[in-house]
Amino acid sequence: MSVTAPAGFVAAGLACGIKASGAPDLALVATDDGRPVAAAAVFTNNLAAAAPVSVSRSHLAINGGRAAAVVISSGNANAATGERGIADAERICALAGEGLGVAPADILIAQTGLIGIPLPMNPIVAGLPRLVAARAAGPEAAVAAATAIMTTDVVRKEVVVDGGGFTVGAMAKGAAMLAPHMATMLAVLTTDAAVDPTALKGALTGAVDATFNRLTIDGCTSTNDTVVVLASGRAGPPGDPDALRRALTEACETLAGLMAADAEGGSRVVHVVVTGAVSDDGAHRAARKVADSNLVKCSVNGADPYWGRVVSELGSAGVAFDIARVVVAYGDTVVCRGGVAADHDEKAVAAHLAEPRVEIRCDLGLGDGRGAVLAADLGHGYIDENRTTS
Amino acid sequence: MSVTAPAGFVAAGLACGIKASGAPDLALVATDDGRPVAAAAVFTNNLAAAAPVSVSRSHLAINGGRAAAVVISSGNANAATGERGIADAERICALAGEGLGVAPADILIAQTGLIGIPLPMNPIVAGLPRLVAARAAGPEAAVAAATAIMTTDVVRKEVVVDGGGFTVGAMAKGAAMLAPHMATMLAVLTTDAAVDPTALKGALTGAVDATFNRLTIDGCTSTNDTVVVLASGRAGPPGDPDALRRALTEACETLAGLMAADAEGGSRVVHVVVTGAVSDDGAHRAARKVADSNLVKCSVNGADPYWGRVVSELGSAGVAFDIARVVVAYGDTVVCRGGVAADHDEKAVAAHLAEPRVEIRCDLGLGDGRGAVLAADLGHGYIDENRTTS
Repeated sequence: MSVTAPAGFVAAGLACGIKASGAPDLALVATDDGRPVAAAAVFTNNLAAAAPVSVSRSHLAINGGRAAAVVISSGNANAATGERGIADAERICALAGEGLGVAPADILIAQTGLIGIPLPMNPIVAGLPRLVAARAAGPEAAVAAATAIMTTDVVRKEVVVDGGGFTVGAMAKGAAMLAPHMATMLAVLTTDAAVDPTALKGALTGAVDATFNRLTIDGCTSTNDTVVVLASGRAGPPGDPDALRRALTEACETLAGLMAADAEGGSRVVHVVVTGAVSDDGAHRAARKVADSNLVKCSVNGADPYWGRVVSELGSAGVAFDIARVVVAYGDTVVCRGGVAADHDEKAVAAHLAEPRVEIRCDLGLGDGRGAVLAADLGHGYIDENRTTS
Repeated sequence: MSVTAPAGFVAAGLACGIKASGAPDLALVATDDGRPVAAAAVFTNNLAAAAPVSVSRSHLAINGGRAAAVVISSGNANAATGERGIADAERICALAGEGLGVAPADILIAQTGLIGIPLPMNPIVAGLPRLVAARAAGPEAAVAAATAIMTTDVVRKEVVVDGGGFTVGAMAKGAAMLAPHMATMLAVLTTDAAVDPTALKGALTGAVDATFNRLTIDGCTSTNDTVVVLASGRAGPPGDPDALRRALTEACETLAGLMAADAEGGSRVVHVVVTGAVSDDGAHRAARKVADSNLVKCSVNGADPYWGRVVSELGSAGVAFDIARVVVAYGDTVVCRGGVAADHDEKAVAAHLAEPRVEIRCDLGLGDGRGAVLAADLGHGYIDENRTTS
């Protein structure tokens, strides 16, 4: 169901020929009556931002936070493609707008795939009228759209959240190059809650900061990250002013978990929790340093309880640190206390490290700061996936 | 030859039983007459610094920059070992000092190996008198010492530099967990130049900053990094005041190159050069972001000329960046100009990427800032080396 679950939305997905494999690669999420509604987005902070990011930013600025549809394509990122890439993205919006009967600036665009290769416009131009014509309500249309945005994803990523009086639906892609600031991930959320663009942007930013920005696969920040939400208003305003942020957060949290579980070459999800830091920000930085450590990730891949690497990363995270106060646990089992080895149940640790989701809990013993980061281990599969693109 | 090449130094190396394999694991570099001489060191900036780092820092402070010997052991890092670790390191210095007829504070100590495991003191205590008795001038003694400091190193790392009127000899270990600030590397340098401790520290810091701090294998900063230099003074003062810094830099440069070539699981050395940045610091940060990128390192492992990842890393390095001005080249072949694909000789790129040392040259087109970082690719070998310690 996902993006078509909230009232007022249609979707479509098909194969137009961007991908040589013939897999689906073009998707649409639109309002069912073609009217622009409140819209908000969060984009990558990479200064090499791709053309679709520039174009969507510009369209949201022109429209004051409204949009009638999002076009998403996969297989080519349209990044590092210069002015031609911008012109191509604008042309896609113009063609989609023509088909839907709205202005080009009412269309947002997101793209994902290889960087540095000009977009193959012929198949896209030929596919867009079919895509627009195929738009429909209902679960099949949502599945088609969620399928067409996948790249190296193994699992389709969809979620529906009951907000209490309104609904949030969402789909996403992302399996690598995920880092703070959402690297290489796309997500489209819809809701029938009635909300003005400014409040919608605030709710989305809060949700993204608490979820996608706490996810890291390889520390790389993509050129194309985009999270978009459209709000049809059909369900009226949320009773509780914070309900929309909570529902968006729940949707993004689920999608982030699906991404971590689907990480390229990853066999395990790693959840690094840091408590006792001087500040929440420091706790997050420390958690991220541990989560991005190739050595820690290799240990998790090998189910090796080598907590010394965790302590070493905490000590070089650039945050306040006193080794004599550090506690490290795998799951519920403390393996290091006061900065030295603690007697512990080795079988319990081994059992925990054999699970698909590993928890590394670190307490710095200095304050009340708390942070957590979701990551993946590092195994042969990641290298196999990324050593060649051809 | 290495550390015994300059006049006034002896060395020794042997297996005392720290390593279960029975490989050499205890080394000594000392003045041949047992007198303290000018000494300087640069240590890790990891706040989880190991006991030997704390003890050596303290001894140099007590002595005002003088030492008679360095004891180095491998197989156990004596890190995250608390007060017991400090007491163990102090005891090793006291025993070595007793054997050499100097005060404990005249001894420096460096250790490398696994973190979080108490040091096995019995074999070390039994081995120290043998080590002291075995000290000798000449190349065999230097080789024995350089062999005993190796951990996952495949290649022994030694160098001798003719400073013009004086000599510098050096040995090092390091094959992973290398990052800016010299993670998990030990190096001991000797020279017969006459120099006071303050000038020696300045020359060493300059040499380390230009070499070991420009090397990254996996972005992890170790708990034990130590670079020590002892200056016997036997050759008199250098004619040129800058000659010592230059000779130390040349020695460290050679050792850094040996480390990159010997990186765990690495099949290629990657040299990332960034020019045209707003500042040298910005250029170094950008080069480091590219060099630490798992995606870029996987591409190099696969000999895949995917420059899009390089541009993406430059754009997220946190430095001034305008994609429209970026030029990227593999070796001498420009593959991206003005932020978009450039027509190029694909065979030349393929030939370059097949070489053992790959150059990724990036010009940001914004200023005169220049920086370079030496790194290794990321292949199955790194994971196999690091997924389990047992």
